[in-house]
Amino acid sequence: MRINFRANRQITIAINTALIIGHFHPKRNTRMHCLADVAITPIGPIDSIEKALELAKPLLEASGQEYVIHDGGFTIDAEWKDAMTLVGQIHEHLHKSGFVRVHSDMRVGTRTDKAQTMQDKINVVEKKLKQ
Amino acid sequence: MRINFRANRQITIAINTALIIGHFHPKRNTRMHCLADVAITPIGPIDSIEKALELAKPLLEASGQEYVIHDGGFTIDAEWKDAMTLVGQIHEHLHKSGFVRVHSDMRVGTRTDKAQTMQDKINVVEKKLKQ
Amino acid sequence: MRINFRANRQITIAINTALIIGHFHPKRNTRMHCLADVAITPIGPIDSIEKALELAKPLLEASGQEYVIHDGGFTIDAEWKDAMTLVGQIHEHLHKSGFVRVHSDMRVGTRTDKAQTMQDKINVVEKKLKQ
Amino acid sequence: MRINFRANRQITIAINTALIIGHFHPKRNTRMHCLADVAITPIGPIDSIEKALELAKPLLEASGQEYVIHDGGFTIDAEWKDAMTLVGQIHEHLHKSGFVRVHSDMRVGTRTDKAQTMQDKINVVEKKLKQ
Repeated sequence: MRINFRANRQITIAINTALIIGHFHPKRNTRMHCLADVAITPIGPIDSIEKALELAKPLLEASGQEYVIHDGGFTIDAEWKDAMTLVGQIHEHLHKSGFVRVHSDMRVGTRTDKAQTMQDKINVVEKKLKQ
Repeated sequence: MRINFRANRQITIAINTALIIGHFHPKRNTRMHCLADVAITPIGPIDSIEKALELAKPLLEASGQEYVIHDGGFTIDAEWKDAMTLVGQIHEHLHKSGFVRVHSDMRVGTRTDKAQTMQDKINVVEKKLKQ
Repeated sequence: MRINFRANRQITIAINTALIIGHFHPKRNTRMHCLADVAITPIGPIDSIEKALELAKPLLEASGQEYVIHDGGFTIDAEWKDAMTLVGQIHEHLHKSGFVRVHSDMRVGTRTDKAQTMQDKINVVEKKLKQ
Repeated sequence: MRINFRANRQITIAINTALIIGHFHPKRNTRMHCLADVAITPIGPIDSIEKALELAKPLLEASGQEYVIHDGGFTIDAEWKDAMTLVGQIHEHLHKSGFVRVHSDMRVGTRTDKAQTMQDKINVVEKKLKQ
């Protein structure tokens, strides 16, 4: 057999160590802002990507978070927890709408040096490109 | 003009509707299981990807969640909320460790037809490839 | 040792089989059109993502391919080979400009049922969202 | 207005300059090695991801390139052009096998400081994590 799977590894269940107490608190919310560019793909009929955006849109809107819908999905500009909860609820909503498998590819950036919105990011790129 | 900007589109936004009341609750946790394959990149010195994994490892371990560290990052096998909280806390920890910008690329899958662990997924692929 | 690496697998070098002759021709170009949404990250100083776009822009322009620069990188609307060659040359250019490590996250879609440009895709989403 | 569209930006495009003549040659092949982690998703029936790997496997094998199939897709260790041609041919093969839409998410890394194989990368991570 040529192919060698990740499968061969043993998957371990980790146990708590005192070492990092102070870092990990399962219930603690992060206070980070993030920009999350999400491409969502329900596995199903051919027009499913557009259908996913159609189904996601009212949840994005009702969330009160800043977002942009673009041709590849949507970008959310929010606190980490709010962004991730929102994407999770969109997955749930797609499942309730009949898709048994949903996949999201998320590119998520955080930074601590300054607050940066989507528009700030665009402005930096624009400025650079105009030089 | 060859260039065709996403900028040119004008996507209209539907008004918040009662339709989806009942779907969106910002504080409500999802009950979905997910498999999240995370590639984490702190923007910084050259060895930062390996450093990121080194810093992430104790948090992964202390989380009590199932996970695998692989050459491209790590995969978490957990409830949506727990997986996303964990990745958020790893971002926070990397920031505390001195990285001002951290980027994660996450491939996250959910499904409702059956419970599927990482090992189940591997088994399906193995079985298919052995045929 | 808790962590179990993909590392444990043996990496195989495949040999040619007659089985799929007819499918694989290393020199043969594909004739597929694709939409490739590329997020490019040189591993290095803090402003490297914006710097990457600044360095990429003249190559995108000189390529004669249709493209859009957006806040997360750029999207190329081209034949598969041309899109991939272009991204490869951007990597090379970034290396020549001093970045020793460059990472691209590419979301690439192909379809055979119809020719679909970036604008077509946007139009479909717009239409759906306006309903 | 909460929503902040990518649409609002106006990114100006610099004129083709002689500056980069010498960089861009559409027919020129890159000489870069890359590691490409590919998650391939044909849009279609529920078991399509596993089916995609099943269809991809003989092409990966016949290619003569180094690769690993893992639970999230496959990783190719090859020259940029060879890796990208191979993924393109897998897309084509999936289309010929009946899938009208195929999507790949590729994480592709290149580096110029040293030759690094998949195994090298794993070794670095292992060493770090064992410390």
